[in-house]
Amino acid sequence: MRNLDRNTITEAVLARHADTTNPRLKEIMTSLVNHLHDFARDVRLTEEEWLLGIEFLTRCGQISGDKRQEFILLSDVLGLSMLTVALNNDKPVGCTEATVFGPFHVEGAPRYELGADISNGARGVPCLVRGTVRGLTGEAVANAHIDVWQSDEDGLYDVQHPEIGHAQARGILSSNGEGEYWFKSILAVPYAIPHDGPVGELLIATGRHPWRPAHLHFLIKAAGYETLITHVFRSDDQYLDSDAVFGVRQSLITDWTRQADGTYLLEHDFVLNPTRVTG
Amino acid sequence: MRNLDRNTITEAVLARHADTTNPRLKEIMTSLVNHLHDFARDVRLTEEEWLLGIEFLTRCGQISGDKRQEFILLSDVLGLSMLTVALNNDKPVGCTEATVFGPFHVEGAPRYELGADISNGARGVPCLVRGTVRGLTGEAVANAHIDVWQSDEDGLYDVQHPEIGHAQARGILSSNGEGEYWFKSILAVPYAIPHDGPVGELLIATGRHPWRPAHLHFLIKAAGYETLITHVFRSDDQYLDSDAVFGVRQSLITDWTRQADGTYLLEHDFVLNPTRVTG
Repeated sequence: MRNLDRNTITEAVLARHADTTNPRLKEIMTSLVNHLHDFARDVRLTEEEWLLGIEFLTRCGQISGDKRQEFILLSDVLGLSMLTVALNNDKPVGCTEATVFGPFHVEGAPRYELGADISNGARGVPCLVRGTVRGLTGEAVANAHIDVWQSDEDGLYDVQHPEIGHAQARGILSSNGEGEYWFKSILAVPYAIPHDGPVGELLIATGRHPWRPAHLHFLIKAAGYETLITHVFRSDDQYLDSDAVFGVRQSLITDWTRQADGTYLLEHDFVLNPTRVTG
Repeated sequence: MRNLDRNTITEAVLARHADTTNPRLKEIMTSLVNHLHDFARDVRLTEEEWLLGIEFLTRCGQISGDKRQEFILLSDVLGLSMLTVALNNDKPVGCTEATVFGPFHVEGAPRYELGADISNGARGVPCLVRGTVRGLTGEAVANAHIDVWQSDEDGLYDVQHPEIGHAQARGILSSNGEGEYWFKSILAVPYAIPHDGPVGELLIATGRHPWRPAHLHFLIKAAGYETLITHVFRSDDQYLDSDAVFGVRQSLITDWTRQADGTYLLEHDFVLNPTRVTG
């Protein structure tokens, strides 16, 4: 303990965690300390770089608040969010794939009747969205809790408009007895993730753009099924192959078709994975 | 890009950093992404654990401010700070060893004449501190900038006392023509690092105590020498073998001797490493 060097310090730190009572926490801390130390040794981290890292993380915390979550953005742009989704969403073929949650979901969005206009004043080209929620064997999922959120024509979510004090272009619906859902909203467009903070500086320094392809967020819950967190993407988007947060799945890309009156129609069906019965 | 899985996503994230113009940043990001992803895969990080991590880091940022730096504490208790010190302070035998900087240094501490009482009202048993600053071949280092800081008898630094608006038990002195320094202060005692925040929760969850052995901080700068950031530890301390931040070095442990009048005397000499001349 009194003469630790760059190699022996790792074992000393791990030994200090011997009394961790939660075995899962111990497993996580062991891997975390090993990788953190290996990272510092691999790059021979300098003291100036260490301090820049401390300052970067501090600024990420300080810019975060009720309406902004810079650490989720950081996790997103480093691919950690999508990796975590991939690690936790092994589903049978045929189920709708999951993708990143993102930082813009809000608990307690307004509830709407089927067919309602959830844009609630958000600006954009009108778009009708409809489809069904089914289980893996094709059964209709009635009364599914469908939480939807999206940005407006400026590529901003309601929470990014400081002057808007109410929910826009987000809402909760329930599927009907046939598993059907439909609602009016606005056409989603590509947008840049918030890049006026530390994560934006990182993107600039690494030569990366902040754009995400147009998408609609869905969080779908139903008794007897695993919760699904996903997006639907627009097939004609220029950023499908360079999503800043690595969230695109081929199976989630759909045509959003322009109608004769200039409005759009998006049709997408979801397939939920039945909850495994244990015991 | 449209069908990344838990393994291929890492290469995709690394490929996205191809246009990083700073080669050092590219090297660091490559190692960081590899280790971050390997960590998540190794432990099969769940989505709930991911969110707990996001929330933990956010709270570390939000509790930090002018007088508290939770990310430095986190780095300290995970051994990353001391590892970074070890990676950057290879010195010839005979030079004073470096240790962690810690979160309690303050820029612009008051300047004192040699012999002054830097405690400036901080409570504690009086202690005289003296010694010399020398170079590796024994030469006196005159006019060295000696920045000292320490806690009081309650184990708290001035910045941890919200009611104190001025510097206590910290100050800057200059060595004289013979490299000598001396000043009055108070006896350092063991103290617990701040543990009423997220880092404290982590220590509790991992069965660790928050204590550091008594020490005096020194930051010494002199023209022609590498800057030295170190501590002097008390030889009779019960936490020398379990420092919460892994900062103890055998060579930095010294007897702090009790005098007949109840005050203490600490004598410690420092040996600086000459700056390498390049070109």
